[in-house]
Amino acid sequence: MADWHITGRTRVWVHVAHPSAHVRATHTFNQAFRARALDVVAVSIDVAPADMPALVRGLKGWRNLAGIGVTMPHKEQIALVCDEVVGLGKLMQTVNAIRREPDGRLIGANTDGSGFVTGLRRAGYDPAGKRVLLAGVGGAGTAIAFSLAEAGVCTLILANRTAAKAEALAARIAHAFPHTATTIGPPDPTGCDLIVNATPLGMREGDALPVEAAKLTPGMVVADIIMTPERTPLLEEAARRGCRAHPGLPMLTCQIDEVITFLRLDQPDALAG
Amino acid sequence: MADWHITGRTRVWVHVAHPSAHVRATHTFNQAFRARALDVVAVSIDVAPADMPALVRGLKGWRNLAGIGVTMPHKEQIALVCDEVVGLGKLMQTVNAIRREPDGRLIGANTDGSGFVTGLRRAGYDPAGKRVLLAGVGGAGTAIAFSLAEAGVCTLILANRTAAKAEALAARIAHAFPHTATTIGPPDPTGCDLIVNATPLGMREGDALPVEAAKLTPGMVVADIIMTPERTPLLEEAARRGCRAHPGLPMLTCQIDEVITFLRLDQPDALAG
Repeated sequence: MADWHITGRTRVWVHVAHPSAHVRATHTFNQAFRARALDVVAVSIDVAPADMPALVRGLKGWRNLAGIGVTMPHKEQIALVCDEVVGLGKLMQTVNAIRREPDGRLIGANTDGSGFVTGLRRAGYDPAGKRVLLAGVGGAGTAIAFSLAEAGVCTLILANRTAAKAEALAARIAHAFPHTATTIGPPDPTGCDLIVNATPLGMREGDALPVEAAKLTPGMVVADIIMTPERTPLLEEAARRGCRAHPGLPMLTCQIDEVITFLRLDQPDALAG
Repeated sequence: MADWHITGRTRVWVHVAHPSAHVRATHTFNQAFRARALDVVAVSIDVAPADMPALVRGLKGWRNLAGIGVTMPHKEQIALVCDEVVGLGKLMQTVNAIRREPDGRLIGANTDGSGFVTGLRRAGYDPAGKRVLLAGVGGAGTAIAFSLAEAGVCTLILANRTAAKAEALAARIAHAFPHTATTIGPPDPTGCDLIVNATPLGMREGDALPVEAAKLTPGMVVADIIMTPERTPLLEEAARRGCRAHPGLPMLTCQIDEVITFLRLDQPDALAG
């Protein structure tokens, strides 16, 4: 890092959150920017929901702003501040990355789920045509559900503690992606090809397993989005039962690639201004 | 720099300018922050004058904002965006540093001139009671003029190519600091104790000298605010004539100290939020 030289030309990627003390994305992105020799630096913005719209609108005038990363609790409200929301972000009405166009327009997108799907594909697994059980339909689970449907899964079963929330999401996905049979169901992996944990279960010692692990059978792919610990109890159990375990890290690394592409930071021209 | 780790707790010092490509302050401040082991990072904001007020007002909501550094062309307009301007900044109606209070209020100040005076004092020279010739009353010259008057110089002679500009400044300083005899005059050092160059003359090869160097006499202190080259033709000539030469760098290093104090970055409590 000895040559990290922030100048008047350096572009800035801001990460908005509230609170922000726990945010690790700035460091992860800075490592990625430096590994790619991009003259971009990531910093964190702690802004309360009430102050967020004025702040983000003000950022429209920041010419060397590389873009805005969005964390809770801003992902929904910030979509309303964008001049345009594209892709799955538009369907989901939540945004995790915003690009500033040269004219100051803010273009929102959601790469939360596509990073997960890209991670699966890079690991040699294409979810198209598969039968999938997804546990947890919070922010990450919702994004992954949309991305799996977009990726062409045949059947998508949503398991959530609060069934009404899963039901509402299933209806939205069925409307947007009619070729995927989207239903709600218990966290029972029987008959599924791919099982995804998008609940926080497994982060803390003593957590219950997010799916009925006794019903995992050899050949299934079991993915967890939890990054710490790297090997969750679910992944350990899956490996013991002959399943293929897919950890949480690829979702993040692929998402960084997708954000960099979305921001056009990999295009030299975009850095000229 | 191997341990430079920008997190969600890191405070951010933004430097607003337009254009910003030439701005070196971010790097200088980052070196200073790191030398002091402060968890603060400086980045640059290129914002056009028309977009500046909305952007700066938006920054009021940025809770981990350490403050705002201000460069041309924003120094005057930004004073109007501040909730309060203190000290010489209030008299000068220009601001080069803004602190964000915990309640979001923006407090502007001007440390451009006080850095110069502090630099002189640290070099063992107190300008109080002295007769001073100041060449150049642009942004830096104006700030230095106010700070020298505040520091209690006895006589202040302002020499400027456009005399009307020097005259207007002399009137403002005379009003604010009646105990300093402030006049305009030619760039003639005769009888002066301290000669200050605040013009850009000396930055480029072949520039004329900013004062009548033939009239420099031993014992005078000759200061230049130009930092590149380190030894300007004026300082070389002054040394040859037995004067004491004071270079441009201390103004910057002392100003960084003053900004850090103004921002309260040296107070652990201020970093807690």
